[in-house]
This record gives sequence, C-alpha cells and structure tokens, in this order.
Amino acid sequence: MRIAVDAAGGDFFPKNPVQGALDALKEREDLEILLIGPSETIQNELDQLSSYPKDRIQVVDAPDVIGMEESPSKAVKTKPNSSIVIGNTLQKKGECDAIVSAGNTGALLAASTVILGRLNGVLRPALTSVFPTVKGFRLLVDAGANLEVKPEILYQFGVMGKIYAENILQLENPRVGLLNVGEEEKKGTEVVQGAFQLLKELDNFVGNIEGRDILPCNADVFVCDGFVGNIALKFGESIADSLQEMIKSTLYQSDLEDEQKLMVAGIIRQALSPFDYQLVGGVPLLGVNGISFVGHGSSSSLAIKNMILASVRCVETSINVKIVSHLN
Amino acid sequence: MRIAVDAAGGDFFPKNPVQGALDALKEREDLEILLIGPSETIQNELDQLSSYPKDRIQVVDAPDVIGMEESPSKAVKTKPNSSIVIGNTLQKKGECDAIVSAGNTGALLAASTVILGRLNGVLRPALTSVFPTVKGFRLLVDAGANLEVKPEILYQFGVMGKIYAENILQLENPRVGLLNVGEEEKKGTEVVQGAFQLLKELDNFVGNIEGRDILPCNADVFVCDGFVGNIALKFGESIADSLQEMIKSTLYQSDLEDEQKLMVAGIIRQALSPFDYQLVGGVPLLGVNGISFVGHGSSSSLAIKNMILASVRCVETSINVKIVSHLN
Repeated sequence: MRIAVDAAGGDFFPKNPVQGALDALKEREDLEILLIGPSETIQNELDQLSSYPKDRIQVVDAPDVIGMEESPSKAVKTKPNSSIVIGNTLQKKGECDAIVSAGNTGALLAASTVILGRLNGVLRPALTSVFPTVKGFRLLVDAGANLEVKPEILYQFGVMGKIYAENILQLENPRVGLLNVGEEEKKGTEVVQGAFQLLKELDNFVGNIEGRDILPCNADVFVCDGFVGNIALKFGESIADSLQEMIKSTLYQSDLEDEQKLMVAGIIRQALSPFDYQLVGGVPLLGVNGISFVGHGSSSSLAIKNMILASVRCVETSINVKIVSHLN
Repeated sequence: MRIAVDAAGGDFFPKNPVQGALDALKEREDLEILLIGPSETIQNELDQLSSYPKDRIQVVDAPDVIGMEESPSKAVKTKPNSSIVIGNTLQKKGECDAIVSAGNTGALLAASTVILGRLNGVLRPALTSVFPTVKGFRLLVDAGANLEVKPEILYQFGVMGKIYAENILQLENPRVGLLNVGEEEKKGTEVVQGAFQLLKELDNFVGNIEGRDILPCNADVFVCDGFVGNIALKFGESIADSLQEMIKSTLYQSDLEDEQKLMVAGIIRQALSPFDYQLVGGVPLLGVNGISFVGHGSSSSLAIKNMILASVRCVETSINVKIVSHLN
C-alpha cells in the first residue's frame, strides 16, 4: 500500500510529516510513503537522519507551498505544483492509495473534491471529525465542509458516519443521532425535520440528540450541518485548555503543599488527555472517490503517524465500496 | 416594584418558586411578589412557613398547569388560566413589572411574544442566555427562540445582547462577536456574512469568533442563530458533569489515599462551580414589550431568587427603553 504524505503542510513541516511517515513505516511493513513537497527541503530533512528505509520512501517534488491562511479555491487553482494538488492527482492516477495532510484544510477539501470527484451516489463529501466523549472518541459529521445542507445530505452524513464508525472506530452497530434543539420528532428546522424522516430507516438511529448528549456519548455518530459541526468541534477542542486553566487557578489558591498541587495537576492532565487531538491524527473527507485525510496545522509527528495509519485502515476495509453500496 | 413569579412551573413547584420569592423579598425591601398558580397549592405551601411578609405577597389563582413537555403553542392556546398566560396578561395590563418562570420554556416564549408583543423596531425577541467562560459569565444570543434568521435579526441580537451585558452583567463596553466557522470576513453562510456587514457599525464589534473563542472569553456577547446557540448552550451546560465524571474515574484509579482523593474532588468541584447554572437563575427573552425571564426546570430556590433579582435590575435600568432607542 502506498500513502501520499503532504510534507509541505502544517505548522511544522517538513520535520513532523517526515518523522510521522517514518514512524508509520515502522508499524506497517507493507507500507510505502510518497513524501510530497519541495524536494530539496525534504531531502535535507531525510539526510539528517542516521538511516531510513530508502526503498520505501519516495520524495515527489512539489515546489509550490500553500500557506495555512491562503484562500483555498484560489490556492488550488494558482498552485498546480503544490503538494496538495500533486498528491490528489497522483491518487487519481492510481499511483497511491490515499493522501494525508496537516496543511490548509480548505485547500485539501477543494482539491480532493475536484480532483478525486465524488463517489457514485454521494451528494456532498463530508468532513468526518472524531470527538472525545466520556466513553472515548465518537464521530461528528459534518465538521465544516458543508455549511448549508438538505435532508438527503444529512441522511448521507449519517450513512457515511455509521460505516466509518463501524469499520475504523470498530464500534459494533453504532448509534446515529441527529443533532437538534430538542428530542421530539417535530423539533428543529424544516431541513432537520426532513432528515429525521430519512434517517429513521437507518438501523440504530436514536433520533434527535441535543447539545448535552454529545459529551455523555448518547450517540456514536452525531449528524449535523457543517456550520453547527464546526462550532461544536472547535468548542469541544477548547474544553481541555480552558478547564485546565480554571482548575489550575483554583488549585494554586488552595492550601495544598506544592508537591500535592503538582500531583493534582498531573491527574487533571491525565483525565483530560482524551481531549488531546494529537492522538486522533486527522479526519477523513468521506464521500470523495479516494481516501483523503486532513489534520490540525499543529499536528505532531504522532498525529501524522496516526493519520497515515487511519488512512491505511480505510483502504484495507474498502470503506468507499461500502458507502457506494449503501447509497445505491 | 412588583414581579410575577410562576409558582406552577419547573420540576419543584410550588416549593422552589415560593422559597425563591421569599428569599428575593428579604434582599429587596421595595419588592412585592405575585405568586401565580393553583392558589390552594400555593397557600398550603405558604401556610407551612412560620411567617412570611403577607403584605408583600399576593397569591393569584391560575388553576391550569402547563406540563414541561407540553406543546408550547397548544398549551398557551388551550390553557388561558395557566400561570404563564395569566402572568403575562397581568404584565400587559401594567399590574406587574416582570414575569419569571422555571416552567415550559417554549410556552413562556410563546405567551410573552404574543401577549406582551414586540418592542418597537424589534424583528424577533431573543433568548439571551448567559454562558460560563474562564473570565466569568458572558452572553449567547439567541439560545433557541429563533432557529432561522436574517442578517438584520442577527444584528439586533448583537445590539440587545450588548445592552444587556452593559446594564445587567455590568461589563464596560462589551465586545460583540459573531459566531462563525472562521475569522475572515468572507467566512460562513450568506446570512452570517450579511450580519457581519451590519454588526460592523457596532462599537466594539470584534468580528467573527469561532467555537474555540467561547470558553476563553474572546468576546462578551456571542451572536448566533437559535439552532447553533441552543446546541452550544446545552453542550456547555454538560461540560461540568461530563468532565467531573472523567476526572473522577482517573482519580479513583490513582494511587492516592482516600482522603487525598476527596480533597482533589473538592478542588475540581469548586473549579467547575462557575458552570453551575443555579447561580445564574434564568435568562431573559429580550425584545418583548415587557420583562420575561425563564429558568431551568430544575431551578433551585436560589436560581429563582437570582432570576427575580435579575428581572428587577432589568426594570431598574430601563433596559427596554435603551433597546428601542438604539434600534430606532
């Protein structure tokens, strides 16, 4: 299996993508990696290492670098020699099985949607984000790719999310919930009410769920439009830091000995570790005719390794075949 | 000043509304309370007390009780003798200055909107919720009264929220932020982009803010539609319980002595206390021609007292005059 890694994306390239790729190669002997980006920069990074599996790594030159703040559609159009455009094109040609990137999210979405195209029957590809709950990671679809939707699109988010949750998160018969302002069937906008009727046909649809149902894990797949999802996701991501700040400030004002304060801080940090997005790696754009993962700009090498391994599982479980089969 | 208290609303009536009313009377000597609900039930509750200020409490009979799960619009139509309908009608007639209720939120919104009417120039009344941040309570408008909006409506949410934040939360020159999926001016749906252009004219508009900006308090008034707001609010309300569960489970697995575990649990509880919604009391429906507050069904007597006192501050600061003056 061959995975394209964007070695010109994220806040810490080429270092983190290169290291993440090498770490993934150690875990999977059947893996090859294409490192895509300015070849000299990447080769310099590799040359600093005492050794690396030269036969399993190929550097692909992509001299144009897309900045994290650039306009996605413009960047994709004006930088054909960027890692994101070249990586997707190579996948389209069948020269690799997936692309992973910690670069400009919008640019990756745009390039993957345009270059790979949509899977047969899919109305809109969706950014399928993982979300920490008290019972572990669950899924939020869509996390920002589609700000405005229709009932049929929300229904497809539920289907794709369920398939991903089953195959990649390995949850048995995952529960699909529709994020809404109340539990009753007639709650919410017309679009959401329409989606409710369609989602009913899904096995293990648990109906409407509210904002308070996310953290306690009252569903395994939370379906919503990308506007709501993006706000919920970023809000969720901010919890650990904000709460640690609140707890630390109470802690420092307490009568505890310094040593005890350190110990308590350690417990808090450990308890909040499920909110650490580096563990997740990245999230897939489901519904494109290929495998495309995107991670945080701040992705560590661990995050990039995990993103590569998740993309491998998508290929191995033929997740796209399952999506097409369910939707047609 | 005379405040109507719904003594037939919430999960713990008549006990909590009656006790909350009595506690509010102790704090404000110039206050009178109308306790509205089934008069016999309320009088029985009062008769159990050793004493209460009989000259400052009046029981108003409202035999119809609206359940927490009843359809709001139907309940308001079919139960004219409910505390919510009678309380709003008394306010409309000028027989009281405000109504507070821990009852059916939708029914209160519907009754206040229909019976009190809208303030001159207000397009849509908004549920103006407080939200805990690392710097204390801030505002989220709208928290669920308006699921679909227009740019002008979002603009008015910003204006009303700013006035409430200044006068009731007593924040100096509060910062207004538009909840969006990115910081750039061109982000988001057409409605949100349109609202951005209108909100620009507001003093101290800080532009688009993202989900991650809420808890760190990067604005004082978070403007959004009621669908997004309701999900964010309920998500926020669930943080304290869910996080305590996660932290406790780490704590119990640690090597600490039992006594130390208790101590740490106490620190966590204290640190998360700003998330305790009983402190807030309730939230106003801004934009109606009167003062209408609604609290959680689970409101304690403390919550109801705080809600009464907040409604008093709204009357004292002539908040509605300020809203009308800004919007016309």
